[in-house]
Amino acid sequence: MQFVSFSHNSRPGVGVVVGDTIHPLEAAGMIEVIETIEAIRAGQDTLAPGLALSEVELLPAVPNPGKIVCLGLNYLEHAKEGGRTPPEHPTLFLRTTTSLAAANEDIAVPAVSHKLDYEAELAVIIGKTGRNISQADAADHIFGYTAFNDISVRDYQSRTLQWASGKNFDRTGPLGPVIVTADELPPFASGLSIRTVLNGEVMQDGNTADMIFDLPRIIADVSEIMTLHPGDVIVTGTPSGVGFARKPPVWMKAGDVVRIEIEGIPTLENRITA
Amino acid sequence: MQFVSFSHNSRPGVGVVVGDTIHPLEAAGMIEVIETIEAIRAGQDTLAPGLALSEVELLPAVPNPGKIVCLGLNYLEHAKEGGRTPPEHPTLFLRTTTSLAAANEDIAVPAVSHKLDYEAELAVIIGKTGRNISQADAADHIFGYTAFNDISVRDYQSRTLQWASGKNFDRTGPLGPVIVTADELPPFASGLSIRTVLNGEVMQDGNTADMIFDLPRIIADVSEIMTLHPGDVIVTGTPSGVGFARKPPVWMKAGDVVRIEIEGIPTLENRITA
Repeated sequence: MQFVSFSHNSRPGVGVVVGDTIHPLEAAGMIEVIETIEAIRAGQDTLAPGLALSEVELLPAVPNPGKIVCLGLNYLEHAKEGGRTPPEHPTLFLRTTTSLAAANEDIAVPAVSHKLDYEAELAVIIGKTGRNISQADAADHIFGYTAFNDISVRDYQSRTLQWASGKNFDRTGPLGPVIVTADELPPFASGLSIRTVLNGEVMQDGNTADMIFDLPRIIADVSEIMTLHPGDVIVTGTPSGVGFARKPPVWMKAGDVVRIEIEGIPTLENRITA
Repeated sequence: MQFVSFSHNSRPGVGVVVGDTIHPLEAAGMIEVIETIEAIRAGQDTLAPGLALSEVELLPAVPNPGKIVCLGLNYLEHAKEGGRTPPEHPTLFLRTTTSLAAANEDIAVPAVSHKLDYEAELAVIIGKTGRNISQADAADHIFGYTAFNDISVRDYQSRTLQWASGKNFDRTGPLGPVIVTADELPPFASGLSIRTVLNGEVMQDGNTADMIFDLPRIIADVSEIMTLHPGDVIVTGTPSGVGFARKPPVWMKAGDVVRIEIEGIPTLENRITA
């Protein structure tokens, strides 16, 4: 199934997506959808009348997750292009919910920096609470997947030892447009093409099979540290081809259109504004 | 005024602390207290009958903040003891809400590491929504202050480039016991003694006047990146004397009692368990 968070007539909602139609659900939000997925699956044949996708404003796929855990340096060629050796452990950093944005939402170039860079990433949406989850049990804790653009303000990211400043500008992390449940994709969403297309040009062109740390390992390692809850988001790193590593560097500017294309997941598109 | 988050008969509550007594409030939680502080101040003379502080279980001072922004390397001598040069900009990293703990709560040594270290920190509780807050306006956005022990798992903190793994073990960040409103402390809580006392021995002995970046600068810099909301927590870095930099290093172990003492703020005490 596919689920979307949206706003319609200024009221937030959540629904099942079938083709170009949203069938609104009674759940208060995406986390409640995840927690009541069995009942929702059982009621699939009696869906509420639909809204056209084009009628609503999308929201981040999970608008208010308990946590957003991000991986850096999880594709070998990307680690190399940044001058890094591949790490022995997943490199984790965090995003705040204020840094999330929606599919189709305009992303503003910050007033204080023009070094705005894209990063195509597969986002995992956690389905079940767990701590110290074994790699063998990892699949049980995954609700589904969506696309993420880990848009980064590179000068703020690198001006101190920690990346958080450059990764947490307001509304720079579009998450969506929809969550595709895990049963609709290959195990651990591995083997999927993942690309960034900027103004029609392919800038990143990788495959989720090329992650240094695969999803069972990531879920085991993250949950060794912290309890994962339904709706928590783990974003799994970006392949090579980012703007800062190009010669000359490529920064996103007002008027650009950036698309994150992951095989089997609807495309995440955003326009850049001043 | 002083405010506390607590649990009584398994129900969460929030109240005004006067001496050893909690006067429960009707607010649903600390964020609602912050948002309705004017009405609460106006009703101070008609407080509800009290509960003894000893009757309740404390919760983190803000149990579910929208974000927890932490500063590293914000005291010169601490930057030096870690072999770092003082940064030109505040070094920001983030904590998740699952990493918070309460005053008096037992803190467990992780099964996977014995390198558990204390860090005494002044925590600022944001009172008013803002982005791009000027240094001149910073005071308007501060609700109050409390103590924080930024307990760190040092081998996980240093095994990758980013500190998040070592800073986000479940329930390693005690926040409390109470929030002291800003009017009860000097401007920007500057000039306060800040100490860690481990098993009766003073391990850190600093002063909040010695921060490299003071609170107006911190609030201006953080809010240049992200919108701050009521209940958001900013923790402002730790003075020198942490365990990892001692020769030999000092790690907290089961049975230890660690106290964070900040002048004008009730002491934050936790016991370490296996």
